[in-house]
Amino acid sequence: MANTVIAVDVMGGDFGPSVTIAGVARAQGERPHTSFLLYGDAAAINAELKKHKSLAAVSTIIHCDVNVPMDAKPSVALRAGRKTSGMWKAIHAVKEGEAQASVSAGNTGALMAMSKIILRMQPGIERPAIACIWPTMRGESIVLDVGANIGGTAAQYLQFAAMGAAYARTLFGLKKPEIGLLNIGTEEMKGTDEVKRAAEFLERSELNFKGFVEGDGIGRGDVDVVVTDGFTGNIALKTAEGTARQMAEYLRQAMSSSLMTKIGYLFARSGFAALRARMDPNAANGGMFLGLNGVVVKSHGGADIDGFATAVDVAIEAVDADMLGETSRRIEKIQVLLDDVWAESLD
Amino acid sequence: MANTVIAVDVMGGDFGPSVTIAGVARAQGERPHTSFLLYGDAAAINAELKKHKSLAAVSTIIHCDVNVPMDAKPSVALRAGRKTSGMWKAIHAVKEGEAQASVSAGNTGALMAMSKIILRMQPGIERPAIACIWPTMRGESIVLDVGANIGGTAAQYLQFAAMGAAYARTLFGLKKPEIGLLNIGTEEMKGTDEVKRAAEFLERSELNFKGFVEGDGIGRGDVDVVVTDGFTGNIALKTAEGTARQMAEYLRQAMSSSLMTKIGYLFARSGFAALRARMDPNAANGGMFLGLNGVVVKSHGGADIDGFATAVDVAIEAVDADMLGETSRRIEKIQVLLDDVWAESLD
Repeated sequence: MANTVIAVDVMGGDFGPSVTIAGVARAQGERPHTSFLLYGDAAAINAELKKHKSLAAVSTIIHCDVNVPMDAKPSVALRAGRKTSGMWKAIHAVKEGEAQASVSAGNTGALMAMSKIILRMQPGIERPAIACIWPTMRGESIVLDVGANIGGTAAQYLQFAAMGAAYARTLFGLKKPEIGLLNIGTEEMKGTDEVKRAAEFLERSELNFKGFVEGDGIGRGDVDVVVTDGFTGNIALKTAEGTARQMAEYLRQAMSSSLMTKIGYLFARSGFAALRARMDPNAANGGMFLGLNGVVVKSHGGADIDGFATAVDVAIEAVDADMLGETSRRIEKIQVLLDDVWAESLD
Repeated sequence: MANTVIAVDVMGGDFGPSVTIAGVARAQGERPHTSFLLYGDAAAINAELKKHKSLAAVSTIIHCDVNVPMDAKPSVALRAGRKTSGMWKAIHAVKEGEAQASVSAGNTGALMAMSKIILRMQPGIERPAIACIWPTMRGESIVLDVGANIGGTAAQYLQFAAMGAAYARTLFGLKKPEIGLLNIGTEEMKGTDEVKRAAEFLERSELNFKGFVEGDGIGRGDVDVVVTDGFTGNIALKTAEGTARQMAEYLRQAMSSSLMTKIGYLFARSGFAALRARMDPNAANGGMFLGLNGVVVKSHGGADIDGFATAVDVAIEAVDADMLGETSRRIEKIQVLLDDVWAESLD
């Protein structure tokens, strides 16, 4: 396998290089064909690389003085970090072909703004989307968009479906991933007009469209790819995260309520450890930016070492499985439908 | 306390009179000042009432031959059940003043359509909303709309906020319930234009507006009332329900994975029972239809006896605490703001 180069903004996230570089090192251990460009404070990076010799051997450090603030508005972050920040330079390395993918745990809005400005859209795609990996009862599914766009047109939902299908093939190796449209009822009567129009066109597409999916169908694993707009998708994702935390807290309270439950907890420790592993959000970390001329992965700001390693791993898989080429081919296949949707909107 | 009369469509739901009548009986046991009008098949109702003597003593049976099918579209259900069905007649009893509230576990769309046609909107309210009770880490919150409307204008969000505040006062006894607007970021930069406009007007209102709430803030109990549109709210609700079921299934698998975890489960039984009680969706059953000239409560179709009893109980509380009057007063207080929003939309 050819050498894959990943550009990493190591200063982003809540913990900085101590977590991000350890995460990169963990991912690199599994993927020996990968080398890294590390953007950030050179002294801090060098200090961390001393602990990770094999990573140091395949890394190039690019010192950057400027960091994008975690909480700044995208427009402010852009003014502060354009051309100078590690975030910008890491994405720019993808555009220049110096790296095949970029990973950051920094400010999401800034990362999306810079990615779109630097990389621009793939042909036939109007808007980027953020895709997340959602743990389900059947394994994992992809949900998009979870935050790049508010609202969506039928054409955009079609494009999201094609992008999501390409990503599911990349990540899960599925040839015909099942696609669902998130809606408030599985009957055809409900939902916004654009969602209903999107369903009509998806029925006619070469995509493996299974119809509407309700909120509880995501975690049940009804389909491999759930398509929605970024407002609804983000609220669904955050609501699920909140509910999982709430359940975990209820469980903690229940298990510490009496001596007997505490003893039971001790006996059942291995079961609780397995449960925690399945509920660990770090295991599904890595928001993939889809639709751009380059692979960009957003890690949760609060990800731990395993979480950041997962995000790096997702980036490597997307490169190795040619996600961008797969996306282009799928968009080409639905181009006639996209033209029809557009023509209909002129009626 | 004056006698409260509740009109119940006993044929709706997945289980029919055996569950609904037992649920009414359970609610009546706690609320001796309440009497009931029971709409449905007289033979089936009489058979069930034999098991519930004290309910029989305060019940009037109104025989109806026509039932609204659970899965029909609202328009079809309306044609099938207008004037003749138990669902219609139970709501009509509220309009006629024969009852103060109506409860059904039947077809949601049909119940909303009939409720709006029969009862019409309270003055100053454009659209009805469905409010649910959401268990949180702090207790319970109200979330609306969870399914009556797709999308919303700033004026409608304001009205929902006033309606939700009135309901929170009714149900939780809170004088100044905290209100939040569901959004995808807590910064002011995000969200749809209508949500942002609604926030500006809510800041100026007499309501206790706390700003934006993200998906994970609902279950954390950030505010007492979460306002959103019916598309987003329904997907958030279903996603939370699905995630809770997923966590329960993970827990079940973890606890049955080995002999040790099974022994631990036995020791911790009381803790798991407490956990199940907190995760029981029946404990929070009862979708309140807000904005209409009458109290209508929708029970989950799959509710058990306790669940249906909760829905009946919510209806009784809404009547006893004068939810409709409270709603009118809150809408009056924001009338000037509503006029301003409307005028601005003409600009």
